[in-house]
Parts: sequence; C-alpha cells; structure tokens
Amino acid sequence: MTCESMKIPDIDCVRDAYRRIKPYIHETPVVTNATLDQLTGANVFFKCENFQKVGAFKIRGATNAVLTLDNEESKRGVVTHSSGNHAAALAYAAGIRGIPAYIVMPETAPVVKINAVKHYQGMITFCKPTLESRESTAEMIVKNTGALFVHPYNDFRIIAGQGTAALELLQSTPDLDIVLAPVGGGGLLSGTALTAKSLNPQIKVYGCEPANADDAFKSLAANTIIPSKDPVTIADGLKTSLGDKTFPIIKQYVDGIILVTEKEIIDAMRFVYERMKIVIEPSSAVVVAPLLFRKIDVAHKKVGAILSGGNVDFEALFSDLRRRYDAS
Amino acid sequence: MTCESMKIPDIDCVRDAYRRIKPYIHETPVVTNATLDQLTGANVFFKCENFQKVGAFKIRGATNAVLTLDNEESKRGVVTHSSGNHAAALAYAAGIRGIPAYIVMPETAPVVKINAVKHYQGMITFCKPTLESRESTAEMIVKNTGALFVHPYNDFRIIAGQGTAALELLQSTPDLDIVLAPVGGGGLLSGTALTAKSLNPQIKVYGCEPANADDAFKSLAANTIIPSKDPVTIADGLKTSLGDKTFPIIKQYVDGIILVTEKEIIDAMRFVYERMKIVIEPSSAVVVAPLLFRKIDVAHKKVGAILSGGNVDFEALFSDLRRRYDAS
Repeated sequence: MTCESMKIPDIDCVRDAYRRIKPYIHETPVVTNATLDQLTGANVFFKCENFQKVGAFKIRGATNAVLTLDNEESKRGVVTHSSGNHAAALAYAAGIRGIPAYIVMPETAPVVKINAVKHYQGMITFCKPTLESRESTAEMIVKNTGALFVHPYNDFRIIAGQGTAALELLQSTPDLDIVLAPVGGGGLLSGTALTAKSLNPQIKVYGCEPANADDAFKSLAANTIIPSKDPVTIADGLKTSLGDKTFPIIKQYVDGIILVTEKEIIDAMRFVYERMKIVIEPSSAVVVAPLLFRKIDVAHKKVGAILSGGNVDFEALFSDLRRRYDAS
Repeated sequence: MTCESMKIPDIDCVRDAYRRIKPYIHETPVVTNATLDQLTGANVFFKCENFQKVGAFKIRGATNAVLTLDNEESKRGVVTHSSGNHAAALAYAAGIRGIPAYIVMPETAPVVKINAVKHYQGMITFCKPTLESRESTAEMIVKNTGALFVHPYNDFRIIAGQGTAALELLQSTPDLDIVLAPVGGGGLLSGTALTAKSLNPQIKVYGCEPANADDAFKSLAANTIIPSKDPVTIADGLKTSLGDKTFPIIKQYVDGIILVTEKEIIDAMRFVYERMKIVIEPSSAVVVAPLLFRKIDVAHKKVGAILSGGNVDFEALFSDLRRRYDAS
C-alpha cells in the first residue's frame, strides 16, 4: 500500500520520505538559548528550518512529492498556486528532476517571493489576487500541460515530507517531553505530530496558532473543519485553514492548540532577533510566544520547537537605514 | 616576560589567553553560504561572533584581561568607559571573578546597551556624551576605588584575547588563504593578524573599514596614527581610531585595508539577514561588503571572515510592526 492510499500516513512514510529527500536538503541545526531557558525553567531546543534551503521547511514536503512521482507522470511537470514558500520549494524540487514547475502567483505577490521562484527556474503565471483566480488559473495549466497539481499541505506526500523535520529533531534530541509546531494549513503540524507520537507516544504535541487565524483551534473544538475567513495576521504563512488530509491526523495526534496574539508574535520575533541573533519569519515566532508569555507550563521539561522559516522582506528596514546614512 | 611587557604580543599570548577564557566563552560556529560562494567563486567561512556571549567578540579580550589580574589587584575591580559591547563584556568578565565593574556610559547611551550592562551587574556611572567627560569620569572612579582601567582595545591582554577568535577559526578551518576582520580601534584586527600570520605566514590578512572612518587606511599609508575626527558611519563599533598598541601590530602583520561605503555596508547587512538568516550588526557587515562588491579578488580562494557581533536595537522595526498590526 502506498502512503497516498492510506487512511493516515504512518512513520514509515516519514522515514521513506527522509531517505528520498536527504541528499537534497540541509540537516538543519538545533539551537538553544540560555535566557529563554532561565525564563521558562525548561530546556528548549529550536529546530532551525529558517536555515533550510529556500529558507523554510516547505522544501521537505515539496521535494518528497516531486521525488515520489514516477518517471512518466513527472515529465509533464508540477503546478501549484502559492504566494509563499511552497512556490519556491516546488520550483527547487522540480529542478532536482529537471521537470517544469508551473507556479501561479497573485500579481500582487512581493517581489522577493517572485524572485525566489525565478531563481529556481519556476515558470510563473500571474493571476488576480483571489483564491478563485488562483485555482482557475492552476486548473487551466493542468488542463493545457498535463502537469500534476501539488497542494501546499493537503497531500500525504507533503505531510510525510514535513514530518522529517521532527524526525531529525528527535534523532538529535531524543528525550523531548513536548514538541511545538506552528499551524496554518496543518502540513507541518500533522507531519510533526504523527512523527513525534509514533516515535514516543508519551510526547505532548501542541500546535501554535495566531488568535487572529484560529481555525485549527475552532476546528478541533467543533470536531469539524471551520475555516478562517480572510484572517489578518502578521504570520502570513498561517492564514490558510486545515484541509481534509491534515485535520484527521491533527485530531488523532495533537494534544492541543495554543493561541497567541499579534503583539505576542511580534515581541517573540524581536526576542529571537535580539537575543538569539537569528532571522525568523513571523510564522516561526508563534512557537516562541507561548514559551515567552507562559501560555504553557514547561518547567523542568525538554521542549522542542520548530522554527518553520526565515523568509522576511527587509526592504522597509534597509531603505530607512539607507536614507538615514545618506547611502542610496 | 609577560605578554604585557613585550614589544608585540606573540602567538603564545593568544594561546595562553585561549586556555584562560575557554571555559567562559562559546566556541562560535563557522557558517558558509552557497549564494555568496557562487557570486565570488570563493569558499567563504564566516566566524560567527554574533553568536558569542554578550553578542560580540569583545567578551574574549575583556575576559582575558580580567582573568590575567592577580588576586590582590583584581579585588578593587575594573573600570572602563564605553557605550558599546566592551562595557557589557567587561561587566560579564568581572562577574566571573566576583569583582566590581565600574562602567562609565554617556547619558545618551541607548537603553539596550544600558540594560545589557545592568544585566551583568555592571555599576554604571553616567557622564556627558563627550570623550573628555568619559575619560575624566573614569579617572575619578580609578582614583576613588583603586579599580583598574581596562581599555577597549589599546591593551595587549585585550588584543591577545581578541586573537582567540582567529585561533578557533584556523583550528576548525586550517587551510585559509585570506582572513578578513573589521577595524575600528584595531583590537580585533591586530589580534587576528598576529594569530593568523603566526600560524601560517602565507595567509593574507586584510582589515575592512568604513570609508567614512578610514583612520586605519590613512594611518598605514602615512606610517603614523592619523585619527578619525567624529566620523559618521552606521558601523558604530568602528568609529574609534587605532591606538599605539594596535598600530604597530597592524603595521607588521596586516596586508592592507579595504574601504567600504555606507551603502555597501547596508546592502551587505541586508544580504546576510535575507540570505544567511542571521542577525549581525553593521560593524560585522564591513567584512561581507568587500566580498559582495568585489573589492578584493578571492576567486578560487578559501576566505575566513570574522562577523564581529550581532547587537542591534530593533525597537524601530518592531514598533512599526506593532503599529501596522494594531498590536501595541
């Protein structure tokens, strides 16, 4: 039975994904911070997917999906619609096999995101900045080219690939008590939870979510998917809602969802920049905020937290610096 | 003969310093970046002192200076005037021995710098923001307490301590062709150069300096110290001028000074944030700029570059984010 035809993927799907993608990804470092450990009374281990290729964990799932295709079906290429990290990740993964990647992006997408896709030779088709236009444009490309649509999270190959971050984390730091992962569409959280719980059923796994985009929190409470509608949050990677592939895994394996405010996300991001000296995107800061603001009791525990990515557009900051130092 | 009484300290002074300070500092990681290597045709190895304790290499020299004191003289404590990383570093180092650190800071010093010194239990005396007021205040403290003045760079114990960053770098990456270090007062550059040249006379060592604060460049050309007068540069750690202890070492061991503009510094800093996902202060970016803007031919070479620190005040950036996301 292939992982795609299972009811829920198992740990072997994650292990197979890891064997498949290992030559093409970085084994990212795990870092600690003495100040945070003092503040929380815990030992916190951050898995730094901000240092991953393409700047985010998304490369894991996208590469697994592309490498899972058989030669015949892969030839026609892959397609997705995304304004974020999945777009660049899929273009990178397609490049490994030398197949085309058709990327549908809203015409309003930030220049850095467009450049990232171009850098990996993705073929961009621009569309109107609505979900409808994104989906219809992608469908048209599928129809015209026969390329395969690769969803950013609602796909077991993607979920198994994202699970490899937790696999690496638990290989290097096996005795964790708690694992935290951000939740948007649920690809990373479902992969993380099924991996962690399969390796050690005693581990507690929590999803961390912006209170302004709390569909996972609500969906778990209601036992049915309740999508967020146009949520406004600085954690732009977490605006998406759970899908029918990620929700059942999260229901089965996740112990709870921790909500954080916009201010907590921003303050947590600042803590990481100023104290840990690493660049993370706001979606990563949602796993730091619960620790910093004591939304969860972690005293005397070993906590793993996945920093999902580090793609930030610093144009505003640096153009201001250039102005101040008369250096344009 | 003690290192302090030598004409110029030798590699054994650096080795002794390293034995002394090793238990109290981080062995910082060395990182690479594929994009930069592609752009330059070189292999560049960054020594990440931004991840050092107190966020900068300054801890190395300050700790060596404090640990070199004999018990009797150490009791009365240490004093310095600094608005930068040396202040926090000396407070940290004094804490190791449980002796007082008197830190003279201009009353205009940024709150983050003041807080860093307080965090390490340094005793702050505020003064007017002039060099004269800083020096006279420090002299008064020396007179009243008998504490020892520890200069931020013009001191062989400091220079030997700063040299340990290059010692670690060359231990982990022995076959470097070129080493780059920032130059302000010259503590890091002189320590780096004497270490690198002593371990391998073939290595080329270059100082990197803001064109707006080019006293090292001018001093080497004129063969006498020509201080900068109130230079304006974003690289605030590099406004100081060479001293009579650092200049002779730099003259003997350094192959040249590379000047970079404010725009090049800012663009290099942005490259590091966006591509390498690490936080560095502007003074660190001066070693990245010559590579990015081809101020030096490094094709087919192995290049070591010391990222001196990562202490940046992000208040402006994050208060803007809080405003935009209505999260104050």
